[in-house]
Amino acid sequence: MIFIGEKINGTRKAIQEAIINRDADFIKKTALDQANAGADYLDVNAGTDPSREKGDMLWLIEMVQSVTNTPICIDSSTPEVISEAIHAVKETPMINSINGDPERLQSFIPFIKERDCNVIALALDESQSGMPKTVEQRMVVLENIFKATRDAGIADDKVFIDPLIMAVATDQKAGLIAFESIKTIHAAYPEAHITGGLSNISFGLPNRALVNRTFLTLAVAAGMDSAVVNPENVALIESLKATELLLGRDRFCRKYTTGAKIAFIKK
Amino acid sequence: MIFIGEKINGTRKAIQEAIINRDADFIKKTALDQANAGADYLDVNAGTDPSREKGDMLWLIEMVQSVTNTPICIDSSTPEVISEAIHAVKETPMINSINGDPERLQSFIPFIKERDCNVIALALDESQSGMPKTVEQRMVVLENIFKATRDAGIADDKVFIDPLIMAVATDQKAGLIAFESIKTIHAAYPEAHITGGLSNISFGLPNRALVNRTFLTLAVAAGMDSAVVNPENVALIESLKATELLLGRDRFCRKYTTGAKIAFIKK
Repeated sequence: MIFIGEKINGTRKAIQEAIINRDADFIKKTALDQANAGADYLDVNAGTDPSREKGDMLWLIEMVQSVTNTPICIDSSTPEVISEAIHAVKETPMINSINGDPERLQSFIPFIKERDCNVIALALDESQSGMPKTVEQRMVVLENIFKATRDAGIADDKVFIDPLIMAVATDQKAGLIAFESIKTIHAAYPEAHITGGLSNISFGLPNRALVNRTFLTLAVAAGMDSAVVNPENVALIESLKATELLLGRDRFCRKYTTGAKIAFIKK
Repeated sequence: MIFIGEKINGTRKAIQEAIINRDADFIKKTALDQANAGADYLDVNAGTDPSREKGDMLWLIEMVQSVTNTPICIDSSTPEVISEAIHAVKETPMINSINGDPERLQSFIPFIKERDCNVIALALDESQSGMPKTVEQRMVVLENIFKATRDAGIADDKVFIDPLIMAVATDQKAGLIAFESIKTIHAAYPEAHITGGLSNISFGLPNRALVNRTFLTLAVAAGMDSAVVNPENVALIESLKATELLLGRDRFCRKYTTGAKIAFIKK
């Protein structure tokens, strides 16, 4: 599994306040805790205020890089922010995210190529009103995305597909559609990674953590090999380790029995 | 899911002592607690001492039936014990268990027919030294079992197949073999049920409860629809409810959100 630490996100209140107050210690601690817990990438999102985003992003990157070498996942929908950020990061970054919109694809591809980035690709485009509903809708979007990335010479294994998980509380089939999407994507693009956030699935339900980690177990069995999570969530990580063990991916049960230290499983 | 409550088992020390001391209150409470927690059947095993088994079995059945109407799963390998027990039980029982041995099959089939019982069928026979290792070995045994049950006019949906789960600590592929066996059995015998104990899978590992419930999630996704468990294990049951929810089997999330009262999902 490739873990993208989700906590440095300016749409969360505590991070937003730390950004506004330039609370360096808080950002550094948040970055370091996730890195120490085993994050492979640290997502950095500077919030949605266009007048502040670029400056805040660059400050966040500086703070994160002052305490850890863990690569950064630059989380922005603004090409101008991405273009500055990819020059500020030291390690090869991930870009979060492209989607099937041709304009966004074409504006982001030069950045992906320039630093040989990994990139998260959302299985949606503007032709769909809101989120994709079916497996087939997702596959049509992904076909367009992979046509663009392959034409640009970007290898499939640089692409982390987010199949877009919906809430099971509003659609009883949301889980089934997610697992079927993951299986179909994995079969069609075996070299690509499959990632995504877990929290949508449990929206509106009690004990969301239980639904999220049960979802992760079933999603990993279906072919998901990355997730945008809080790597300090011990119950989630332990559940994932049990899953990997049961799927025959933990030789001598070594990762499962390593106790507190989390050993992440690379694809 | 069809749950078979596992606790009244004379090979467990507390139950063994209660049997020897004829501690009726302890057996009644154990039965009632499992029934109230939602068990569909209560397994009753009187231990392995041939000089005592029949008398102890009949006493246990009397104690259980004095507090609950939940059907009994008569757990014995002795035809003489079964033949008396099936006349002592009020509700249609389950018999635990037949396997691929022709002699055992032929001695048990009359009892199954006589009371139209459900029956647990273990995917092993004496031709195999110990437990079956591969999916194929299991399927060969099951072919013999279903030939015998079908010839006797026993419907497939009376048969609860136990694919026999091995320990992942001694064979890294034990989980994968279990899930593949469940899928293959489910495809070959879609009307039959698939059941089994969960504790073998985690033998020798720390935090066995986590491995057991993660296994159940993946096994249910593969097609398992019954289990021999302690229905009072809240973490297991809650995890199962999240699994059923994510597999699209919980309309309006009603079972998941019902709180403390456990709502079992019938096949």
